[in-house]
Amino acid sequence: ATAFRASEHQHIRYNPLQDEWVLVSAHRMKRPWQGQVEPSLLKTVPRHDPHNPLCPGATRANGEVNPHYDGTFLFDNDFPALQPDAPNPGPSDHPLFQAEAARGVCKVMCFHPWSDVTLPLMSVPEIRAVVDAWASVIEELGAQYPWVQIFENKGAMMGCSNPHPHCQVWASSFLPDVAQREERSQQAYQSQHGEPLLMEYGRQELLRKERLVLTSEHWLVLVPFWAVWPFQTLLLPRRHVRRLPELTSAERDDLASIMKKLLTKYDNLFETSFPYSMGWHEAGANWDHWQLHAHYYPPLLRSATVRKFMVGYEMLAQAQRDLTPEQAAERLRALPEVHYSLGQK
Amino acid sequence: ATAFRASEHQHIRYNPLQDEWVLVSAHRMKRPWQGQVEPSLLKTVPRHDPHNPLCPGATRANGEVNPHYDGTFLFDNDFPALQPDAPNPGPSDHPLFQAEAARGVCKVMCFHPWSDVTLPLMSVPEIRAVVDAWASVIEELGAQYPWVQIFENKGAMMGCSNPHPHCQVWASSFLPDVAQREERSQQAYQSQHGEPLLMEYGRQELLRKERLVLTSEHWLVLVPFWAVWPFQTLLLPRRHVRRLPELTSAERDDLASIMKKLLTKYDNLFETSFPYSMGWHEAGANWDHWQLHAHYYPPLLRSATVRKFMVGYEMLAQAQRDLTPEQAAERLRALPEVHYSLGQK
Ligand SMILES: O=P(O)(O)O[C@H]1O[C@H](CO)[C@@H](O)[C@H](O)[C@H]1O
Ligand SMILES: O=P(O)(O)O[C@H]1O[C@H](CO)[C@@H](O)[C@H](O)[C@H]1O
Repeated sequence: ATAFRASEHQHIRYNPLQDEWVLVSAHRMKRPWQGQVEPSLLKTVPRHDPHNPLCPGATRANGEVNPHYDGTFLFDNDFPALQPDAPNPGPSDHPLFQAEAARGVCKVMCFHPWSDVTLPLMSVPEIRAVVDAWASVIEELGAQYPWVQIFENKGAMMGCSNPHPHCQVWASSFLPDVAQREERSQQAYQSQHGEPLLMEYGRQELLRKERLVLTSEHWLVLVPFWAVWPFQTLLLPRRHVRRLPELTSAERDDLASIMKKLLTKYDNLFETSFPYSMGWHEAGANWDHWQLHAHYYPPLLRSATVRKFMVGYEMLAQAQRDLTPEQAAERLRALPEVHYSLGQK
Repeated sequence: ATAFRASEHQHIRYNPLQDEWVLVSAHRMKRPWQGQVEPSLLKTVPRHDPHNPLCPGATRANGEVNPHYDGTFLFDNDFPALQPDAPNPGPSDHPLFQAEAARGVCKVMCFHPWSDVTLPLMSVPEIRAVVDAWASVIEELGAQYPWVQIFENKGAMMGCSNPHPHCQVWASSFLPDVAQREERSQQAYQSQHGEPLLMEYGRQELLRKERLVLTSEHWLVLVPFWAVWPFQTLLLPRRHVRRLPELTSAERDDLASIMKKLLTKYDNLFETSFPYSMGWHEAGANWDHWQLHAHYYPPLLRSATVRKFMVGYEMLAQAQRDLTPEQAAERLRALPEVHYSLGQK
């Protein structure tokens, strides 16, 4: 019998955090691609545009005028998917027709006053200011809502409708689906093994090394064993930290620095401003079995213009990936930590 | 207190088939869209292209020459994600690093010898031939594999790399994720209520009417109460049918006819060849609690070039939709059943 090699032989892998499987078919990278090619992303963004509602001094849809901010800037989303006061749909009349109340708030956070920068092009102290702003918004909204989702959609390919560097914060009265799955898994793991799932997972990856992308004094970045997106990564603190506000000043500086390195590698991979959706998952009140972490989900597969499509089989049956997580980690590890647009030293 | 109106007030809905929640925020359709616009889909496809590996008489990547077929044509995918003989990855050494064997086959099915037609532009007897070909491939592969996934990715937006009308069939040695979820739910519903979940669901939708799109003697098409994609639909037989091969000749003709109507409405919605991923879900051997059904997942939201992005919040927290399922059903219901490209009678 032929010996198993992950890079040659398809197999399925289990995601114990979200209780899902992925089909890994690495030999598939050999097929030619004749499908859709994305528009090239090279668009020049002006540093300041008075008509862009995210810019300092601009007037927003609701008539409010932004301050002339010079760091981060947090404000209420003018078109929120969640509002604080929606009435309750009332009791369901049938088990197959269940609806429940949803209340919340949606905020937008600008990372920087300039529209023509992205996180990897910002300085470490500027990124540190973003980390602090994330911690405060979690502190504030986490006191009122059971779940606060910080997420960044970067790039038009990820549905981002404004090039100004920003993220969103949606806080909800309900625990969203993915949070529920992670809660169940981390709860079960803790009660079975007596420690948080992601603490043991991070330790194992440090020993195994093959999926590590970056390590620092306080953080690790790795391509998870069960990654679905081609260059998906997981960013984890080494110490048991439940929520962003718990991070020490040294851990925040170190986070800013490792984020800059990761995002620089991402941009360097295909020499483009790498699109992705990312977000933080953190504990609600008193969830000791949770470990703070961020997921990065980037869609590009082969080049700056050829993405992975999660379509037919993936939507109807199971996620499928075309290179192994180990191959992805190796490629990311090998990339320089200096941004391609700045030339090499 | 304000009275609840689904079209004005956000709420969450439960999908009892796949055990998932969706956030419905219909008021969000009011926001302006300044994000990515897809390339216009108007590309002229030649009826026959000897270099297109899906055409009759063409030579494929592996050197095989297609027959001069004049109906449907089924062949092995030259770049299969699943192969029949992959070795087993062996036992896992840690509960957080679980991999398992995956074996299977991937086939491609051409619907028609011409590249410049799509299902809604084919005749009912031609679509009926596709239904028969689906039933045979399920019969054949279902005897060897526990799950056979028929799916169609239509349109470049859905990662379809070849405009020739075709679908794919992936059979696997494992039960994929979504199949597992539907199996658990249908199994549990049957044992609690003594009848298949989707039989009761279809009956309820026939009574409630507000989400129906089309009905025929043997079939229904509706926008499910828990739909995630803007114009997602569910296609169901009225009678309890577990698998495509069980369909009678009359049911197959009627299926071809209702598919033509549904896909014509889809094309008419934004006067474009409507992109989607669709697929059949059916019972494995002896699963009496399953009801055969097809899911249609189309991405377009506002026009032929503006799609719904399932990104940050959706990937990290929970699916979110911008119009209610009832609004979507109403719009689809109102559309003509004659294809826009054929002019009106
Ligand atoms: O097999 P195709 O059509 O080349 O590929 C398409 O469908 C597959 C199955 O859904 C996906 O894995 C691919 O990402 C997509 O591009
Ligand atoms: O809020 P935005 O950036 O306009 O919108 C984007 O992110 C949202 C949250 O992931 C999605 O629901 C939208 O489909 C997407 O276009």
